[in-house]
Amino acid sequence: MSKQSQEGMTARKAENFDDWYTQVILKAEIADYSPVSGCMVFRPSGYAIWENIQRATDAEFKRVGITNTYFPIFIPERLLQKEAKHVEGFAPEVAWVTHAGASKLEERLAIRPTSETMMYEVVSKWVRSWRDLPMRLNQWNNVVRWEFKHPTPFLRSREFLWNEGHTLFATEKEADAERDEIMGIYTRITEDFMAIPGYMGMKSKSETFAGARATYSIEHLLPDGKAIQGPDWHSDGQNFSKAFGIVFIDKDGNKEHAWQNTWAITTREIGVMLAVHSDDKGAVIPPKLAEVQVVLVPIVNDENKEAVLAEAKKLFHTLAANFRSRLDDRDNLTPGKKFNEWELRGVPLRVEFGPRDMREGQAVLVRRDTGAKRPVRIGAIAEEVENELESIQSSLFDKASKALSDNTHEASTLGELKRILSQKGGIVRVPWCGKSECEARMKEETGGKILNVPLAQKKSRHKCASCGEDALSLANFGKSY
Amino acid sequence: MSKQSQEGMTARKAENFDDWYTQVILKAEIADYSPVSGCMVFRPSGYAIWENIQRATDAEFKRVGITNTYFPIFIPERLLQKEAKHVEGFAPEVAWVTHAGASKLEERLAIRPTSETMMYEVVSKWVRSWRDLPMRLNQWNNVVRWEFKHPTPFLRSREFLWNEGHTLFATEKEADAERDEIMGIYTRITEDFMAIPGYMGMKSKSETFAGARATYSIEHLLPDGKAIQGPDWHSDGQNFSKAFGIVFIDKDGNKEHAWQNTWAITTREIGVMLAVHSDDKGAVIPPKLAEVQVVLVPIVNDENKEAVLAEAKKLFHTLAANFRSRLDDRDNLTPGKKFNEWELRGVPLRVEFGPRDMREGQAVLVRRDTGAKRPVRIGAIAEEVENELESIQSSLFDKASKALSDNTHEASTLGELKRILSQKGGIVRVPWCGKSECEARMKEETGGKILNVPLAQKKSRHKCASCGEDALSLANFGKSY
Repeated sequence: MSKQSQEGMTARKAENFDDWYTQVILKAEIADYSPVSGCMVFRPSGYAIWENIQRATDAEFKRVGITNTYFPIFIPERLLQKEAKHVEGFAPEVAWVTHAGASKLEERLAIRPTSETMMYEVVSKWVRSWRDLPMRLNQWNNVVRWEFKHPTPFLRSREFLWNEGHTLFATEKEADAERDEIMGIYTRITEDFMAIPGYMGMKSKSETFAGARATYSIEHLLPDGKAIQGPDWHSDGQNFSKAFGIVFIDKDGNKEHAWQNTWAITTREIGVMLAVHSDDKGAVIPPKLAEVQVVLVPIVNDENKEAVLAEAKKLFHTLAANFRSRLDDRDNLTPGKKFNEWELRGVPLRVEFGPRDMREGQAVLVRRDTGAKRPVRIGAIAEEVENELESIQSSLFDKASKALSDNTHEASTLGELKRILSQKGGIVRVPWCGKSECEARMKEETGGKILNVPLAQKKSRHKCASCGEDALSLANFGKSY
Repeated sequence: MSKQSQEGMTARKAENFDDWYTQVILKAEIADYSPVSGCMVFRPSGYAIWENIQRATDAEFKRVGITNTYFPIFIPERLLQKEAKHVEGFAPEVAWVTHAGASKLEERLAIRPTSETMMYEVVSKWVRSWRDLPMRLNQWNNVVRWEFKHPTPFLRSREFLWNEGHTLFATEKEADAERDEIMGIYTRITEDFMAIPGYMGMKSKSETFAGARATYSIEHLLPDGKAIQGPDWHSDGQNFSKAFGIVFIDKDGNKEHAWQNTWAITTREIGVMLAVHSDDKGAVIPPKLAEVQVVLVPIVNDENKEAVLAEAKKLFHTLAANFRSRLDDRDNLTPGKKFNEWELRGVPLRVEFGPRDMREGQAVLVRRDTGAKRPVRIGAIAEEVENELESIQSSLFDKASKALSDNTHEASTLGELKRILSQKGGIVRVPWCGKSECEARMKEETGGKILNVPLAQKKSRHKCASCGEDALSLANFGKSY
């Protein structure tokens, strides 16, 4: 039998990011490998993060009138083929079901890589009049994209969990207006809950979702200097409604095709979050998303054990009433070993409580992110812990924001772009004329790509780094995961 | 384009249960068919029921220390075969993935019909010492069982949603003690939330879960006189821990195999609930689980429209602050049409508010289950609605309990059993000696089966209905869905 090692971290974030990341995920018991290559296991601590993300995001969805649904995981091959660009984009990564029991199926079934085709085929029966619109549906489910690149837990997994929002509107204007609402929700979730900043913008044509007419994304930066795409929102126009016959009678009695959008946030985001915040001691998890927010470690010896534990239990009662809390009263480990273990696992705040603390009516708070310690009055423990958790949450975001801004550069020529990317990495703002040839050239020469183009730029006076003609915008450019 | 009919119910529950059930599900817009035969679509109203069930159940799981996880949907064929009886039970219904993109896979992957094999293979790496136990894991996910029988939304669907609990204990005694805790949770969820009663008991050997040593179930009764299995709990003993090498060092330093249980509640339960409560006007949904608990329908004409709507909006504000509420202020439908639509959709309580009500400071509550109307003071609307919803919730359960008890019979001979089943249907308490031959004979002669055997019976003085020898117990017997 092969039992897993529970030793601490050995890899260093600054020296070997890939090994370090894998160690954080595995040793902090956030996720594990599975017997299926490229598919991961979410352990309780990792799944709790997703549950907390999901709860916060879903509350925002419901607030703006989005309703949840569930559609089948199987998509018949002919259905997947109904929108030409869409199938072209996904077919190479589809897992196919060909048999059920001992019988061969008449038609192959795709495991959903995304559900446009299944949903729109069905939804076309539900929409008749402008009164049925907007129809704003969402699913929280699992999807499969059989990538052949090197898999990495959360960051690149053949099966992943996500939300897929699919919305239908009577007019283009209403459909377009949804962008800021949804990207606003995703921005709040990534910034306020995951404590990770990013750049919002529009993807170039070559990076637009298969079947969409425009894609907007939030782009994050990993500590190794590579960018990685976060949540996205796609304007589908009438592409799918034409392919699937989603027709309604408008206010004037005319037949119209619905205007559609889709949008998603995935479990990849958990990997980005852990990569950004964690350190050489192990995982660092923002308090709002951590399975355990506070761990209480009583410090006892044989003489005072009973008295200290009795008081610690009272203290724990207060903590547990207010926070996701754990009492570590295991008698086979020293306090030092316990500290290491909870630091490895990324619990945001440790409360130490020993005989001296008991005498003085205090407990000691120790922050996971900075290691800072301070004694607080037992009588004010709930307020003190709450303040400390809020402070941790906001300093994680501040630190990550500083890292992003420190690693965002500007380049005005192709040579400069190339040099910055190879020497420093990070995200480079580069002037671009908007032409695909220039995008392709920048990509080829640097190994990076246009991540997205920020909205609402002042009219640029810059010249395209590739062709020297007037630039339409400064694009976010970087090597990407 | 084929647009769905939104006409009301035409089938009668008492006359043609199957057609009636399908009409309720489709016309109340709870679920829909999909392009994949046997796989259903959960529409917003249907998925909301599942979300509410899930939320209530998950809170109970968390309260007793169960943690959620997520394991891959794919199970390699060799892994599925590790426990002999288990694979034998599931192989005929497995959907197989054989290709990814254009590549043939080296080994076929099963879409999980249940996750014992995947989870235990991985978990065997996580358990080392008695200190790691109990380990109580759960997943909320989708599973696929490719049944070849006639599919019915919720009741028999090739893909369904469920929880699968998988727990590991250091001792048999602790493992066995979990039964009452979990079956207690399932009983509260089915009775207090779904308002459906059932009989708890142990399955016979022939009906025990593939790979388990004992299965306990809650058995419900459908209005057509057939029984249907609800949530279940399985004692696996050490069957799987031996097959998967889940070994730990016990307190005395000896190697031991873990004791395991599994348990589940599925979306089938939604179908049972709707079948039990709904009527010839459409769906009846218990208030605790309904997507919309209260619908406010203002009754206006051209003269008073503005004044009534303004007051109705204030009233709606109070309702929405306390209940899942909807204001139906559509101007293209008569109140009567609206009443019919919300009755069809199963909203538990309607609030009518017209000019006379406005003058008199009242609103009229109309119950979906009984049709009873009563005026209430606007000033007390929140309390009145709350009381009414509670009353609906409990009368649904009382009515269903009476139906179950009215349709539970006793038989002491095989002839009597046969006669009751063919004339009345329902559940029959029948004395049984415990032998498989007698079970098989009763099954063959009546077309029914032993559903389960209630716990804690007084020593029976009865004689087995089949062989006439001393009966060990009175079994619950019935034709089963």
